[in-house]
Amino acid sequence: MQHSYRQLAALLSKKIKAGQYQPGERLPSVRACAEEHEFSVSTVIRCYRYLEAQGLVEARSKSGMYVADWSESHVQQGSTLKSAAAHPPAVEYDKLISLQHRMTELYSLTAQPLELGLHLASAAAEWYPCELLAKIAQRQLRQHPMQIGAYPAGSGLPSLKNSLVQWLATCGVDLTPADLLMTNGSTEALSVALRSVAQAGDTVIVESPVYFGLLQMLENLGVKAIEIPCVSDTGMSLEALEYALEHQNGVRAIVTMPNFQNPLGCVMPDKHKKRLLKLAEQYDLALIEDDVFGDLSAQAERPQPIKAWDKQGRVIYCGSCSKSIAPAFRIGWIAGGRYQAKITSLKLSHSLITPLLEQAVLAEFMQSGALPSHLRKLRERLSASIPQVIAAVQRYFPVGTQIVSTAGGWWLWLELPEHIDTLALLRQSVSRGIAFTPGALFSSSGKYANYLRLNIARPWDKQMDNGMRLLGQLASAS
Amino acid sequence: MQHSYRQLAALLSKKIKAGQYQPGERLPSVRACAEEHEFSVSTVIRCYRYLEAQGLVEARSKSGMYVADWSESHVQQGSTLKSAAAHPPAVEYDKLISLQHRMTELYSLTAQPLELGLHLASAAAEWYPCELLAKIAQRQLRQHPMQIGAYPAGSGLPSLKNSLVQWLATCGVDLTPADLLMTNGSTEALSVALRSVAQAGDTVIVESPVYFGLLQMLENLGVKAIEIPCVSDTGMSLEALEYALEHQNGVRAIVTMPNFQNPLGCVMPDKHKKRLLKLAEQYDLALIEDDVFGDLSAQAERPQPIKAWDKQGRVIYCGSCSKSIAPAFRIGWIAGGRYQAKITSLKLSHSLITPLLEQAVLAEFMQSGALPSHLRKLRERLSASIPQVIAAVQRYFPVGTQIVSTAGGWWLWLELPEHIDTLALLRQSVSRGIAFTPGALFSSSGKYANYLRLNIARPWDKQMDNGMRLLGQLASAS
Repeated sequence: MQHSYRQLAALLSKKIKAGQYQPGERLPSVRACAEEHEFSVSTVIRCYRYLEAQGLVEARSKSGMYVADWSESHVQQGSTLKSAAAHPPAVEYDKLISLQHRMTELYSLTAQPLELGLHLASAAAEWYPCELLAKIAQRQLRQHPMQIGAYPAGSGLPSLKNSLVQWLATCGVDLTPADLLMTNGSTEALSVALRSVAQAGDTVIVESPVYFGLLQMLENLGVKAIEIPCVSDTGMSLEALEYALEHQNGVRAIVTMPNFQNPLGCVMPDKHKKRLLKLAEQYDLALIEDDVFGDLSAQAERPQPIKAWDKQGRVIYCGSCSKSIAPAFRIGWIAGGRYQAKITSLKLSHSLITPLLEQAVLAEFMQSGALPSHLRKLRERLSASIPQVIAAVQRYFPVGTQIVSTAGGWWLWLELPEHIDTLALLRQSVSRGIAFTPGALFSSSGKYANYLRLNIARPWDKQMDNGMRLLGQLASAS
Repeated sequence: MQHSYRQLAALLSKKIKAGQYQPGERLPSVRACAEEHEFSVSTVIRCYRYLEAQGLVEARSKSGMYVADWSESHVQQGSTLKSAAAHPPAVEYDKLISLQHRMTELYSLTAQPLELGLHLASAAAEWYPCELLAKIAQRQLRQHPMQIGAYPAGSGLPSLKNSLVQWLATCGVDLTPADLLMTNGSTEALSVALRSVAQAGDTVIVESPVYFGLLQMLENLGVKAIEIPCVSDTGMSLEALEYALEHQNGVRAIVTMPNFQNPLGCVMPDKHKKRLLKLAEQYDLALIEDDVFGDLSAQAERPQPIKAWDKQGRVIYCGSCSKSIAPAFRIGWIAGGRYQAKITSLKLSHSLITPLLEQAVLAEFMQSGALPSHLRKLRERLSASIPQVIAAVQRYFPVGTQIVSTAGGWWLWLELPEHIDTLALLRQSVSRGIAFTPGALFSSSGKYANYLRLNIARPWDKQMDNGMRLLGQLASAS
């Protein structure tokens, strides 16, 4: 049985759309409407708010309700989950290159109407166990609705921490639940990790090329980033690192992605990892390990986190379920060794607690034992597209284009001919409905201006083929 | 039909609990178990993980599965939402008084086994529209499971921003959706607000007494907090404020809760609000307005936010649904005027995006028009307990106890006789199962050592009466 306010709303909505009330025309007062339709005043108020939320009417202060210019806006029918941003703000390309706003501007591409938004590192939605997670969530909501009304324990849901501890144990990292703090995604984990060891004016060492979100974070902290070049197969050059450490003051920490570098997609050999850890110990530094892709490298065995060898508690281990299980859940975790008390204090100043429902769903998913087979399937799907993608690059892209990495099927890290400015290329491609990540975002120095990262973690189809052909054409015309 | 792994798990679980496998005894290898019970190896692996997650068995590296000391731990049956922290870490009372850890330690009380955890400012779970929100969430999950697999737009769900814009318009704050950024609760909103206007070494003005979470936040930022005394009915003393501004350098911002101060529960008169805004303009300061309780003050009309008069874009308006609608959702919002670009950059460095599902549920709830009646009912329930609470204080607490505020039914802000140290009182009361917030947390100066804040936002019952009698007894014996 439908609520009265919705009955009335359906009636008025019909009249408005039939033109019986014109845009700009004032609707009857709440009282008059209530009398006319024989509803209560509160029902009419509720009805008017409902129509307002749908963009059909608008309130003018002290004046009443007027029919809105509803045919212009994207009227939201039913589900609120359809993102109906009618007029997304224009992309600010100059800000894309700024340190402080590059993440903001790149992310804003998500709101643009694009055929192919290939600028983020996320797999196709259908490759994630969405229906299963949604079912688990529905069941939990049905059985425990009252959880919505309470503040949960601060450091994270115990059952989820248990599951994570067990999971990490299978890759050689021995933790107890007390060593773990749940965060809002790995972004928050990295943010508090940095803040726990560095302040404005300090220096932190990062890889090059490096995840642009990290550069924006460091800029916002007033912390100087020193970029150490990577060797494309093995990660950070330890020779260059040692040189930098010998000649640089004020370094507090090294940030590394040893188990699937973004954007190179490489895995650091165990020998290098141990040597890196030794250097951190030698120079009394923290080692911030970002392991978000660790479960999805194309290697036969899950690469071991550096945390596994950390005897001194210097490794601040950061992970998340965003790449491997559920991007929309925003669940991350941090095991910060000797820095954990400070990290906990910072996290509670950042955002108090991480939402409970998503944690509980993730915990149940992990406890069911479904994770290993999900990861195996996801890895298979990721690598399945690689041959066609390579063929498309060879067919469509300008002569001289190098495929530096296919990153296990997550993305392409491409080096285009030197004269091509991929930031300029992005402007053109966005106007044609395709977005990617320009190489210049992966450094603060202007390097990689002719590189690009293109998300390929999706089923290969005609749309992708067309997209790559278009992109190749635009690049060739540059 | 039950999954094979669960059938096997039920079988083994029975054997373990019947003592056929003793704690410390090694379970058959995966292969042996598979052969014996005629299941596949992968089913056995999944079964063992499941038992492990339940605390019945534990993996020993390279050695196999062993029966755990399961009778000691709280074995989790079924639902993962029961918080089963078997051995919560002890409360560190010394840290409670430290600036950097007071929020952490107070919040850790939530994990303690308490009869009456009255240390946070949250209403009884059953006073929130949990079932309705759970139903909305279930429906959305059923209709749009694929949302779990995608990164949503960064600044927040458009339909929720629309609803908030309309809601704020009803209290005189005129915003467009582009002015709003969704955050992970008001904690994140306050955190990025502070970071957008102040750096380490700067000074920020706060009220006194003041929400302890803010003090921890400022400490973590290396920002100095100057505390301006409040007048208990009207909020921050503008005379004291003017004096401080005339004599203090390096002040960047003022943080205020003008629409229901925590812990005084008072509402600043409009005249004062306008004068406060003028002072901010005069001294070129940002004015950070924390309005989390604004919809729930006991006043007949919803108090108007200072943001309503903000012509220069100096007011950074922060709100949240945590107190009024759904504590576990962690949804906040920030409209930062001239500081918004910086705020957006900082927020994306803090935590990239706010979970989508909760935003969508909140949007639908607001669009249904259910909010006004929910708030009205909540306010009625809040004020209903006040008479009995006052009577209990008069009956049980030491002579000389002053009820400074009943905060519209949210909490009691009590002044106990001067010799009573409420931090010491807390140690005793926690050991007897009752927690409250010691007054000393509401200042960095050691003031309010004989004050306490006690959550009363729950139905009055025998448990509350007993609790207050016990607390009164302990206080009288101090």
